[in-house]
Amino acid sequence: MEDKIQIAKNYINENKQKILNSFFEVLEIQSISSDPAYAQQLKICAQWISNYLLSIGIPNTKILNTQKHPVVFGESLIQGKDKPTILVYGHYDVQPPDPVDLWHTPPFTPTIKENKIYARGTSDMKGQMMVILSAIQAINATSELPVNIKFLIEGEEEIGSPSIKDFLQNNRELFTSDFVLNLDAGMISKTQPTIVLGLRGLAYFEITVTGPGHDLHSGLFGGIVFNPIQALSKILAGMINEKGVIQLPGFYDDVLPLSEEERGQFSKLGLDDTYYLDQTGASNIFGEEGYSCAERIGARPTLDVNGILGGYTGEGPMTVIPSKAMAKLSMRLVPNQTPEKVNQQLREYMEKHAPKEIKWELRQLASDPACMTDPKFYATQCFAETLETVWGKEPIYKREGGSIPIVTHFQEILGIESILSGFSLPEDNIHSPNERMDLDLFWKGINTVIHYLFNIAESCK
Amino acid sequence: MEDKIQIAKNYINENKQKILNSFFEVLEIQSISSDPAYAQQLKICAQWISNYLLSIGIPNTKILNTQKHPVVFGESLIQGKDKPTILVYGHYDVQPPDPVDLWHTPPFTPTIKENKIYARGTSDMKGQMMVILSAIQAINATSELPVNIKFLIEGEEEIGSPSIKDFLQNNRELFTSDFVLNLDAGMISKTQPTIVLGLRGLAYFEITVTGPGHDLHSGLFGGIVFNPIQALSKILAGMINEKGVIQLPGFYDDVLPLSEEERGQFSKLGLDDTYYLDQTGASNIFGEEGYSCAERIGARPTLDVNGILGGYTGEGPMTVIPSKAMAKLSMRLVPNQTPEKVNQQLREYMEKHAPKEIKWELRQLASDPACMTDPKFYATQCFAETLETVWGKEPIYKREGGSIPIVTHFQEILGIESILSGFSLPEDNIHSPNERMDLDLFWKGINTVIHYLFNIAESCK
Repeated sequence: MEDKIQIAKNYINENKQKILNSFFEVLEIQSISSDPAYAQQLKICAQWISNYLLSIGIPNTKILNTQKHPVVFGESLIQGKDKPTILVYGHYDVQPPDPVDLWHTPPFTPTIKENKIYARGTSDMKGQMMVILSAIQAINATSELPVNIKFLIEGEEEIGSPSIKDFLQNNRELFTSDFVLNLDAGMISKTQPTIVLGLRGLAYFEITVTGPGHDLHSGLFGGIVFNPIQALSKILAGMINEKGVIQLPGFYDDVLPLSEEERGQFSKLGLDDTYYLDQTGASNIFGEEGYSCAERIGARPTLDVNGILGGYTGEGPMTVIPSKAMAKLSMRLVPNQTPEKVNQQLREYMEKHAPKEIKWELRQLASDPACMTDPKFYATQCFAETLETVWGKEPIYKREGGSIPIVTHFQEILGIESILSGFSLPEDNIHSPNERMDLDLFWKGINTVIHYLFNIAESCK
Repeated sequence: MEDKIQIAKNYINENKQKILNSFFEVLEIQSISSDPAYAQQLKICAQWISNYLLSIGIPNTKILNTQKHPVVFGESLIQGKDKPTILVYGHYDVQPPDPVDLWHTPPFTPTIKENKIYARGTSDMKGQMMVILSAIQAINATSELPVNIKFLIEGEEEIGSPSIKDFLQNNRELFTSDFVLNLDAGMISKTQPTIVLGLRGLAYFEITVTGPGHDLHSGLFGGIVFNPIQALSKILAGMINEKGVIQLPGFYDDVLPLSEEERGQFSKLGLDDTYYLDQTGASNIFGEEGYSCAERIGARPTLDVNGILGGYTGEGPMTVIPSKAMAKLSMRLVPNQTPEKVNQQLREYMEKHAPKEIKWELRQLASDPACMTDPKFYATQCFAETLETVWGKEPIYKREGGSIPIVTHFQEILGIESILSGFSLPEDNIHSPNERMDLDLFWKGINTVIHYLFNIAESCK
């Protein structure tokens, strides 16, 4: 086995440029799932992946339509029933590159600087996908896959995977597997391999406020109508108090208190305020009183305004009272909270606190429950051992702030556990301008997956 | 005299299409003063007006540079010292057409529908300018101007006339006159001629709030930094309380209380809540407790947020915590308040109420003092009599909500009074999409000015 691992790793070393060329190709595809204008780019990206799977020795691939963006399926079942079947999960869609003018290099023209690749989707998660595909490519080019593998690469992760639940229910047998390998989580620092055990859920909303029936001149009408931006500001301002506590009625009712053991784990991460000030570039930390930063991110629900727009925002002064104002806001949820209940809580808050003089509308744009995985699951333990072998350091277990709704769907619909790890860093600027992936981690990630596929096959002999 | 008035009015009747053609020409010029990208259009517009003055018999015209956009000067002094010299004030710049997608016809393609001309700048105030120019054209084509006239047509009114104070000080002699005719005020309804006696001032600001040093992923960092949109919302929300009272420290200190006589005048306007609900399309009125709508607009200071922008505002969800958020806001001021003091008050408010966890910046984009004119001034009384003759109804005197800073500059620098009137309507959507001017008022406005020029010459015999 050690021989096979070594020759696969050698293959990677000898084919770095070829692998990077393919990585660049898929990064150039503008697969922005949130904007209907890019639907065709999503199709092109799915086709690219399907072709790529074929080229690296996954014979049985197909593109499956969903209600929105297609899923790429693939399978290699050459090891039969004696070996586990791993479902490799990934997503090929990316966040919008906005604000584009803050990028130092064009977001869809991958650029290497100081051993990092800059482009939208490098770290989240075309890069993580290429880590797995390159490991499989190397093994298939030098020996044979020691386990069975299936693929589910979706195109809706960045918009909350709206089609995937129905899709999985309708294709349960196709995706029958022993467990999921999902590299869409990250590591806490470049030298600290990380396994993620819990992920927050997401409830995302758009609020539109209407004041006057049309835009007005503030000289002729200022002082007699409720300005919709002012109304929206009041609504948003009241949602979090000065102690960082969210004011939606009943918002914390279902939240499980942190156990002493969990608090101990968080404290072991060694991530203090200085670390987070450095990561965020903020001049001060602000959050829910009584919790550390790592606890707030990993185990406490939060609320953020993600966007706001109203009135005149160009150069110079324009004395308009706009008719409408809009805000996008979202809550990160912890286990036991549900997006449906949060919708009710937000609606109740709006009914109570929105000024009576204006009209408002609430639309829910994403709904993902939170999830927890089992650290004692055999395949997760094997992944932890592999991380220790390759990185020379025990992995740390962490509850994370982001949402990967698919984990819960895999648990509930396919009845299988996920391994959540990955090779992205907190400073990779995912969802922000100048997203990047560290190339050291990229190559080391490939080696990790090569090791793991042989290790997990061996451990199930 | 009656003969001369009649033949000038006949000339208008016979040349309506020609006059409209010229009006259309000047409306097509995109003279948006707030946006540097349109500076060339401002120059083109000034040149158009200068040429037009020449074509209607004003021999001595020139274009004078200022620190920003040029001023068009013109004079016809044929009556010598026996007759008054009227300084005709106007502005050729317009507001931006944003939001452009709410226009039913393109903002710079004038379109007549139901006897109204739709285009940016029709009512505010290229139309008012064409009213005066057409009256002069008709008189010059049929007899001769009975008074001396000078012109000051500026290109910065919509951005608070930043250059005009220095410009007037440097050109005091050029503009020496007996009084100003300024048709940039409006009338309260189609059948009610109006003279404006007071105008509110304006202080306009842009606030930028910075939270984290760059955009962040709300999953990875939500809950530990002060979201700048949330911070800005808190700042804005606290500026007005639930009784509509502005919370800047000392904001009302210099405001003169309304006298019983003034309140009586406001109440005589007969403008109740129903009238303003109809004008604004709002579902409810909201304003400072204890004052009627007309009082709030005419004689009380107000504060409005004119624009807000932050984070992701495109389609669908994007889970970003933005680094920055920006708001534009402005206060309408009443006599005795000064934009400088309001700047101090806002700064004091920010220092006290802006969350300590964020950084903020304050920029002042416009500063105009409020003004009052004298209703007993002889030229204003003559204008009132002319209005009654032409419209068959006594004019109403009103204090207005908008700002025309030039009025104060004329008082202070040239020592002359202004007549403030005009032929625009509250429902003309000035500063909003689908700005229009009623053609009935346009033609009747021209007749009014023809009558007035002969009346004022006669009364000064």
